[in-house]
Amino acid sequence: MEGTMKVAVMTGIRKMGFVEREIPKPGAKEVLVRLEYVGICGSDLHYYETGAIGDYVVEPPFVLGHEPGGVVVEVGSGVTHLKVGDRVALEPGKTCGHCEFCREGRYNLCPDVVFFATPPVDGVFQEYVAHEADLCFKLPENVSTLEGALIEPLAVGFHAAIQGEAQLGQRAVVMGAGCIGLVTMMALKARGVSQVYVVDIMEKRLEKALELGADGVINAAKEDVLERAVQLTGGRGMDLVVETAGTEITTRQAIQIARKGSNIVLVGYGKTGEMTLPMSLALDKELTFKTVFRYRHIYPMAIEAVASGKVDLKGIVTDIFPLDQVQKAMDHSVNNKADIVKAVIEIAGKR
Amino acid sequence: MEGTMKVAVMTGIRKMGFVEREIPKPGAKEVLVRLEYVGICGSDLHYYETGAIGDYVVEPPFVLGHEPGGVVVEVGSGVTHLKVGDRVALEPGKTCGHCEFCREGRYNLCPDVVFFATPPVDGVFQEYVAHEADLCFKLPENVSTLEGALIEPLAVGFHAAIQGEAQLGQRAVVMGAGCIGLVTMMALKARGVSQVYVVDIMEKRLEKALELGADGVINAAKEDVLERAVQLTGGRGMDLVVETAGTEITTRQAIQIARKGSNIVLVGYGKTGEMTLPMSLALDKELTFKTVFRYRHIYPMAIEAVASGKVDLKGIVTDIFPLDQVQKAMDHSVNNKADIVKAVIEIAGKR
Amino acid sequence: MEGTMKVAVMTGIRKMGFVEREIPKPGAKEVLVRLEYVGICGSDLHYYETGAIGDYVVEPPFVLGHEPGGVVVEVGSGVTHLKVGDRVALEPGKTCGHCEFCREGRYNLCPDVVFFATPPVDGVFQEYVAHEADLCFKLPENVSTLEGALIEPLAVGFHAAIQGEAQLGQRAVVMGAGCIGLVTMMALKARGVSQVYVVDIMEKRLEKALELGADGVINAAKEDVLERAVQLTGGRGMDLVVETAGTEITTRQAIQIARKGSNIVLVGYGKTGEMTLPMSLALDKELTFKTVFRYRHIYPMAIEAVASGKVDLKGIVTDIFPLDQVQKAMDHSVNNKADIVKAVIEIAGKR
Amino acid sequence: MEGTMKVAVMTGIRKMGFVEREIPKPGAKEVLVRLEYVGICGSDLHYYETGAIGDYVVEPPFVLGHEPGGVVVEVGSGVTHLKVGDRVALEPGKTCGHCEFCREGRYNLCPDVVFFATPPVDGVFQEYVAHEADLCFKLPENVSTLEGALIEPLAVGFHAAIQGEAQLGQRAVVMGAGCIGLVTMMALKARGVSQVYVVDIMEKRLEKALELGADGVINAAKEDVLERAVQLTGGRGMDLVVETAGTEITTRQAIQIARKGSNIVLVGYGKTGEMTLPMSLALDKELTFKTVFRYRHIYPMAIEAVASGKVDLKGIVTDIFPLDQVQKAMDHSVNNKADIVKAVIEIAGKR
Repeated sequence: MEGTMKVAVMTGIRKMGFVEREIPKPGAKEVLVRLEYVGICGSDLHYYETGAIGDYVVEPPFVLGHEPGGVVVEVGSGVTHLKVGDRVALEPGKTCGHCEFCREGRYNLCPDVVFFATPPVDGVFQEYVAHEADLCFKLPENVSTLEGALIEPLAVGFHAAIQGEAQLGQRAVVMGAGCIGLVTMMALKARGVSQVYVVDIMEKRLEKALELGADGVINAAKEDVLERAVQLTGGRGMDLVVETAGTEITTRQAIQIARKGSNIVLVGYGKTGEMTLPMSLALDKELTFKTVFRYRHIYPMAIEAVASGKVDLKGIVTDIFPLDQVQKAMDHSVNNKADIVKAVIEIAGKR
Repeated sequence: MEGTMKVAVMTGIRKMGFVEREIPKPGAKEVLVRLEYVGICGSDLHYYETGAIGDYVVEPPFVLGHEPGGVVVEVGSGVTHLKVGDRVALEPGKTCGHCEFCREGRYNLCPDVVFFATPPVDGVFQEYVAHEADLCFKLPENVSTLEGALIEPLAVGFHAAIQGEAQLGQRAVVMGAGCIGLVTMMALKARGVSQVYVVDIMEKRLEKALELGADGVINAAKEDVLERAVQLTGGRGMDLVVETAGTEITTRQAIQIARKGSNIVLVGYGKTGEMTLPMSLALDKELTFKTVFRYRHIYPMAIEAVASGKVDLKGIVTDIFPLDQVQKAMDHSVNNKADIVKAVIEIAGKR
Repeated sequence: MEGTMKVAVMTGIRKMGFVEREIPKPGAKEVLVRLEYVGICGSDLHYYETGAIGDYVVEPPFVLGHEPGGVVVEVGSGVTHLKVGDRVALEPGKTCGHCEFCREGRYNLCPDVVFFATPPVDGVFQEYVAHEADLCFKLPENVSTLEGALIEPLAVGFHAAIQGEAQLGQRAVVMGAGCIGLVTMMALKARGVSQVYVVDIMEKRLEKALELGADGVINAAKEDVLERAVQLTGGRGMDLVVETAGTEITTRQAIQIARKGSNIVLVGYGKTGEMTLPMSLALDKELTFKTVFRYRHIYPMAIEAVASGKVDLKGIVTDIFPLDQVQKAMDHSVNNKADIVKAVIEIAGKR
Repeated sequence: MEGTMKVAVMTGIRKMGFVEREIPKPGAKEVLVRLEYVGICGSDLHYYETGAIGDYVVEPPFVLGHEPGGVVVEVGSGVTHLKVGDRVALEPGKTCGHCEFCREGRYNLCPDVVFFATPPVDGVFQEYVAHEADLCFKLPENVSTLEGALIEPLAVGFHAAIQGEAQLGQRAVVMGAGCIGLVTMMALKARGVSQVYVVDIMEKRLEKALELGADGVINAAKEDVLERAVQLTGGRGMDLVVETAGTEITTRQAIQIARKGSNIVLVGYGKTGEMTLPMSLALDKELTFKTVFRYRHIYPMAIEAVASGKVDLKGIVTDIFPLDQVQKAMDHSVNNKADIVKAVIEIAGKR
């Protein structure tokens, strides 16, 4: 495809602008995708607000966005499993394929990964992207490209559920009812977990959790989390705790409410990177802590879970902005964190 | 067996005394064991120095000691697998057999466990004990009752090794070269781990580690642990870290030197019960933390490992005191922590 | 409770009769249960028709039946978790609690198990039974004692699902649509398996499978199982195959349709005990064969799955006979194997 | 490197000849290796005797040999981890890197693998080969290229040991004392298995097994395997059985002597591809059958095991022939199967 495309770029702290760039040419093993929806992730907001996450520093102009869904418009010569018109979800990380982690199948740990919107690699708040065809997963008819965009955060939830060995017969709790907390809750339910409770301090988010299928919620601003956990489990403790809030207090509660011998899955990043935790209690209970860095091998399963109705991805979308209003989208998201579960940039979509 | 026996009792903080008690009668499923050796554990010393560990408070007179080896002198009517004269290692925890943990095979988590020398349950610094026959494991000819006594700490090391999925092909490091650090190092080697390094700040302990089979040591007082770990692994990081020192600094180092995607096993208890740790780094590396509370299903394997020469248990014994000198044994142990790897009370033994 | 109770006994091959026996007294850790429903299992029918299963030979009079549900009417002095009036499902095997298998949590392998209706141990086609309270699982209000009786076969299905590591994202197939095939299909669905197909040669059973939630069926009498499996999986092969039919032909097909590297779970017993199988093909595909002997740790989860509506246990019941008509029930079951999914003896029930 | 090289080719059934071919040029990610030793595998002999294995049919001229060790003589432009003069073991299978199996880390199941000496892909009975650098593993100083060649069969043994979850505390038995049986025995020992017994019918092989470290042997021609297994395990049965003989009788014995709930690993291929087995007994014991197809992720660990002295690879070599005598080597191997454990072609080696 010839021509140029509109690209939204971060031009400075809390500043977005637009540039025109050449529409990329797909390589032999790539496809060109016309993007329809791209989700706004917490990391996008963090770069937008502060210009950096840890050692990753934005050099403007920089393109944010790594949760894309779109339509294939051109196919590289070596691609056989996709054709023009296929709607796809795009897994955002290209891995080397050769390091020990790639070879072992743990490609999310590849040190040479090239990941959308992780400096210095540009993201996809733009009209087109050429991407490795193996990372573009075809959506069935009943899954929209809006949902396709949101497979990315859902993948984190499923990876957390798998790391925690979530399964039927468990009582589980998710700390935090933000986007990742909610998709994790749905992932746990989809894997058959018998009871999934959600803890947060914002009533609106807890209502959303109930609406999306949580078996119960705990408002930590009003209730004693430990006491409620004891009630809910008849004193046994939770069989699985997934921490998505990234705070010391919720991580501490995770240790306190977990059943002896159970798994805690840590997903949320804290602000300082450090936490003070009751580790002796963790030893007394012989807990296992699993952690989550992105995900691996999740897309096909996650798409299927959405297609079969096990996961309601549309339900997490609270705000949609056209690409033209990307600055407003970012500002609104930064300013209304409590109210927004998931904001999405609409580039060319039919929802 | 009729008569009385000598029992060493803790009569107050840093005070030991002796009482005479009736030699117990073994129940139908018990055996009466004449004790030959009982190891002194760090927890014994802690009770001795402070009178309590967490919620467990000593009410004098209290009997310390939970690492016993001895000879069967009487057999309950329902016992078939042991006979008078059998030398045995005694697993110190009687579990309920009915709770969910017992039924699932994770009996070390049984909430109703009765464990030697854990208040209010007396230990075995005494001449005889009647104990559940299923918890008395026969020693082969080439394993002494001195070694039998030390199966208990070795079991912790093996449980740590199993929790960490220690195996051939790994480079592992043990933080801490105290008794538990050394038995863990030997347990890792016995399971085939390719390279096992030991970190400590006391040169004498590190020499002992090398003597007992460590592939290398790091003196953290003189060397940069992180740098050395990088050198030793060609930059890959350690495939397995077992933390036995129970300090924040070593636990932090564990996270820093662990290879991405690897297991860290936490064995050592910290002084305050709390630790401040770089949890975001742990998430970035997608580490798993396993913890260790005592052990389960280890005794037969551990005895076999000693019998086959894979583990040199005698090598950890630095001091032996007769029962009469139990006060001296305790005081000496408290006052010379750096020099003592393992002190043992000899009751009636032939080493 | 004083008095006598009616007991249905097998008095010879294909002969049932009745005797009166004392109502048993529950021991300290037992409860007395007034039975309401007892399912008829294939093994009951096999004993009835032939007098033996392998080395287990019926000595008349013998009581059949090991799938009981009922109401607690008396409680032993040492029982705390149950009270009179509680409705319960009874797990039929009392294990020793001391052997290595019991201690490891694999109690289904206990060599000293005492299992209802396994000669010489009597079953429960009778009005009352005194049973270990720990093996009596309280039913929630919305689960009937009819369903309680059927937790037993469902437990086999769940154990098969767990052995096979059944989970979301898989395409699975169950060979055989008898009672065990159907409960296995429902267990797979309850654990989140994405697509579950069922293979049989009887149309009526396949209709039942669809009715109970199968995603598709294959009539092996009319269709080419291998071809259909290729179609259904886009050539990948099945991620999981559970064989419940116990025939060589279905076991062979399991190997043929399984995806490389996948699990096959063997549940069904063949008639001769021997099977001729394409083992080189299994090696080429690096398949894993898991097998199922009864179940362990399943009852609470299975009851919860029924209570939450994930499993429709009533749906498998095709025939209910009062205890008085036990001979008719057995004869009818033997003579109409194709039509009967599950027949149940009603002793005092309200469905 | 310019010039031609000598290549031994199979020109027909039981016929070897020589041709001259161009020395290949290594691609950017390849190295050119001057081969020093290439082992003769049972599959080479099978192709030589019959012209085919299953669907793989030899089209002469065809090059046999897939167990190579040699020295790097030229390095592709994109290779950084190897240099001229490095001695290497070559893993013989190039995989696609893109299929689901490669991505999951189970690359041995890659359908598009290109494997030395598997028709139509030529093997390496020749002086040089250009091979993917990532598949060439550097040998430490104390491991010879003769041992490097034999890493290939050892990898099968280690993969079997891993599939069987072999570990300290187990009593294991290996059925068959051919090359694969012996390397499996050594792999089990290297992983710490407490007792490893070997079963065969040829005394000479059993002597070799003892010489290489087996804890005991059973001559099935003279002793009752089942009885001996009972004796050796005190009636418990074997914790792990690895079947390498590929016969129905040994596979049947594996099922009979395995402890309840244990793993059987199937490595040996039978002559017809089919086996008649007591599957009901396997279900009664709830056995798991794991199978082995080649290996994955083994070379570095296997090389380290040889370097550390845990595995004596030289000990399995019974015959060495120069490349010029390849026909004699093949004929001798075919005609003296009982006496030869491992024959090796020496191309340019210093042992």
